Amino acid sequence: MAKINRNYLKLPGSYLFSRIARKVAEYQEQHPEAEIIRLGIGDVTRPIAPAVIDALNKAVAEMGQEETFRGYAPDLGYEFLRKAIAENDYASRGCDITPDEIFVSDGAKCDCGNIQEIFGLDNVIAVCDPVYPVYVDSNVMAGRTGEFDPEADRYKGVIYMPCKEENGFAPELPSEVPDLIYLCFPNNPTGAIITKDKLQEFVDYANEHGSIILYDAAYEAYISEPDVPHSIYECRGARSCAIEFRSFSKTAGFTGLRLGFTVVPKDLEADGEKLWPLWARRHGTKYNGAPYIIQRAGEAIYTKEGRAQVREQIAYYMWNARYIYEGLKEAGYEVYGGVNAPYIWLKTPGNMTSWEFFDALLDKANVVGTPGSGFGPGGEHYFRLTGFGSKENTIKAIDRIKKCKI
Amino acid sequence: MAKINRNYLKLPGSYLFSRIARKVAEYQEQHPEAEIIRLGIGDVTRPIAPAVIDALNKAVAEMGQEETFRGYAPDLGYEFLRKAIAENDYASRGCDITPDEIFVSDGAKCDCGNIQEIFGLDNVIAVCDPVYPVYVDSNVMAGRTGEFDPEADRYKGVIYMPCKEENGFAPELPSEVPDLIYLCFPNNPTGAIITKDKLQEFVDYANEHGSIILYDAAYEAYISEPDVPHSIYECRGARSCAIEFRSFSKTAGFTGLRLGFTVVPKDLEADGEKLWPLWARRHGTKYNGAPYIIQRAGEAIYTKEGRAQVREQIAYYMWNARYIYEGLKEAGYEVYGGVNAPYIWLKTPGNMTSWEFFDALLDKANVVGTPGSGFGPGGEHYFRLTGFGSKENTIKAIDRIKKCKI
Repeated sequence: MAKINRNYLKLPGSYLFSRIARKVAEYQEQHPEAEIIRLGIGDVTRPIAPAVIDALNKAVAEMGQEETFRGYAPDLGYEFLRKAIAENDYASRGCDITPDEIFVSDGAKCDCGNIQEIFGLDNVIAVCDPVYPVYVDSNVMAGRTGEFDPEADRYKGVIYMPCKEENGFAPELPSEVPDLIYLCFPNNPTGAIITKDKLQEFVDYANEHGSIILYDAAYEAYISEPDVPHSIYECRGARSCAIEFRSFSKTAGFTGLRLGFTVVPKDLEADGEKLWPLWARRHGTKYNGAPYIIQRAGEAIYTKEGRAQVREQIAYYMWNARYIYEGLKEAGYEVYGGVNAPYIWLKTPGNMTSWEFFDALLDKANVVGTPGSGFGPGGEHYFRLTGFGSKENTIKAIDRIKKCKI
Repeated sequence: MAKINRNYLKLPGSYLFSRIARKVAEYQEQHPEAEIIRLGIGDVTRPIAPAVIDALNKAVAEMGQEETFRGYAPDLGYEFLRKAIAENDYASRGCDITPDEIFVSDGAKCDCGNIQEIFGLDNVIAVCDPVYPVYVDSNVMAGRTGEFDPEADRYKGVIYMPCKEENGFAPELPSEVPDLIYLCFPNNPTGAIITKDKLQEFVDYANEHGSIILYDAAYEAYISEPDVPHSIYECRGARSCAIEFRSFSKTAGFTGLRLGFTVVPKDLEADGEKLWPLWARRHGTKYNGAPYIIQRAGEAIYTKEGRAQVREQIAYYMWNARYIYEGLKEAGYEVYGGVNAPYIWLKTPGNMTSWEFFDALLDKANVVGTPGSGFGPGGEHYFRLTGFGSKENTIKAIDRIKKCKI
């Protein structure tokens, strides 16, 4: 008789964003006249850049002609894209990453979720708290954690690294040594960065203890300040302890096109075994490559026009983020993020819970955000807003929030 | 210290297609004048159909405009595509499958590789022998098998179901009861079909024993004879024991566009738990949807023009398959497949091993095929050719094979 993977039953039923959607729908039904603005979304809204559209059109035409038709893509991805990445994302920042250490994929979420498969079930993971849910959930599903403890709002057997005002939302080195350390900077949901010095401490710690850092740099394109690392490979010794994930989703608005990549240095080892062949085998067996036309689209963001257009998109979202940040400050809120990331992380006033603030904001300002507690207990009493809306809606929302001081 | 997933080390190092590539490269180097024809490939060669190209162009244009831009796709895939599938692939054949039982993905290979994740590690799997390697390899990687036994050329703890001339290359019901049964019909590599009656036997068997059938129907579009099931849901009771995988790769030449889907009936259970929510959770956590433009491309194959154009492509490949089949028959070979599948499965003459025949064919006819033993020990003394080449090359290759009788 077939048996299910019972680890799935450890996952609490209600998913953050479906609970939000349900609450918003209920409110709208009771207040049909309310013009609700969503500033909670993590999805982009600007159209794909013209240079990318041109590349897509060209590639589509190629697929329609016998001479230029392309079937299965090479396992690691097309070399034209891997070369552009190695040159523009790594060599240009002094990182020693070669094209054949880059695995092209359909997005960082998939890679972040799948990477744990090449590690044994006996590894202990460490995550930031609050945290993007995929790191933990994918490990729960694999059986690398204990049961969920509803009172602690945490899984047993996972090391949580608190990210609070006190540490600038960048975690301390854990006292209990983890085997796998998930880090995401610039951070979702807090919008915080990690300094190069602090990241170097993590790299040194991982090398000393034989831990592997799984570094999610999906938001690196939003970094506006100097001295903030765009890649973990800017740190000494990272090649021997770190895997890095990158995404075109937020960099160039590819959430609906699907493209990302993972860097696994050829010499990176765990347990006396190289990790590159393991990920190559996983990639080759359970994945079949990103579409040719999407890989050409990705290549286009590295052209002169593409780069300029994509920068403009990021500037648009970051204008929104800054507007939210400053507006909330003016309104008397304690606010974080928004400078090197499209996320604004605000402290709820008067010790309200995240969900109390959600309800109040929806009711008084008709604005939807994301309760911080949805990202883990460390997010309680915080709230996430994003710069991904339209400029008009962002201005309107902040105006309303200012008027209705909660 | 991070530990790797040591199950990966059970996988034998040398992959079938890289061994073939190496041998061909060596031969070409020693015989620079040889004009080598590849009839071993499983990749398509015809360009994407005009109706699909039109749909791609339209969707690309939409992505470039603010009003029509699309970000993240819905978790299950866009409803326009799921509706088209439910209507054209299922309702039209009398199968009771609703759009919300269809999970759109980037291909059947990924889904076939990932599906095992929702099942416990204590399930025993059964596969055909010979077999498409992904079913077994993904289970090896997860730890659901024992070690590889090089002498038997098999993994311990896996039930192999022999597919030979004697049973028309469709397996007998296994005597030891498996928990998960992988079936692929029309079959890769043998090109064989399963009759509706025999498939019904498997469905009844699975329902009786609580086994789940994982049915790979990636080649259903190549079925030319009546009474051959296109879907397992044509069998009574399949909704309570079967998951089905479909692909646009061979149906419409999407190997480089990436689109497929998996059907999980809402009432399908194992172990007292519904499987639909488990796969939905897996899909939602570790995957992020097929690109919008590719889903529009998929929709286009169900239009009147799209359907006609795609049928033409299939007819092209099947003309090749039939030409190979008949040519080999004339040349005195024992040949199978090629009627309801683009694969031709020939018995090597004079009890040659698959690799001996590979070498002889390369040397005497400069034609490359795939040794049957690469698909498991049951494929020894067999050889796979495919109809996916160009018509010209197919004719030339058969001509050469006829002249050089091995």
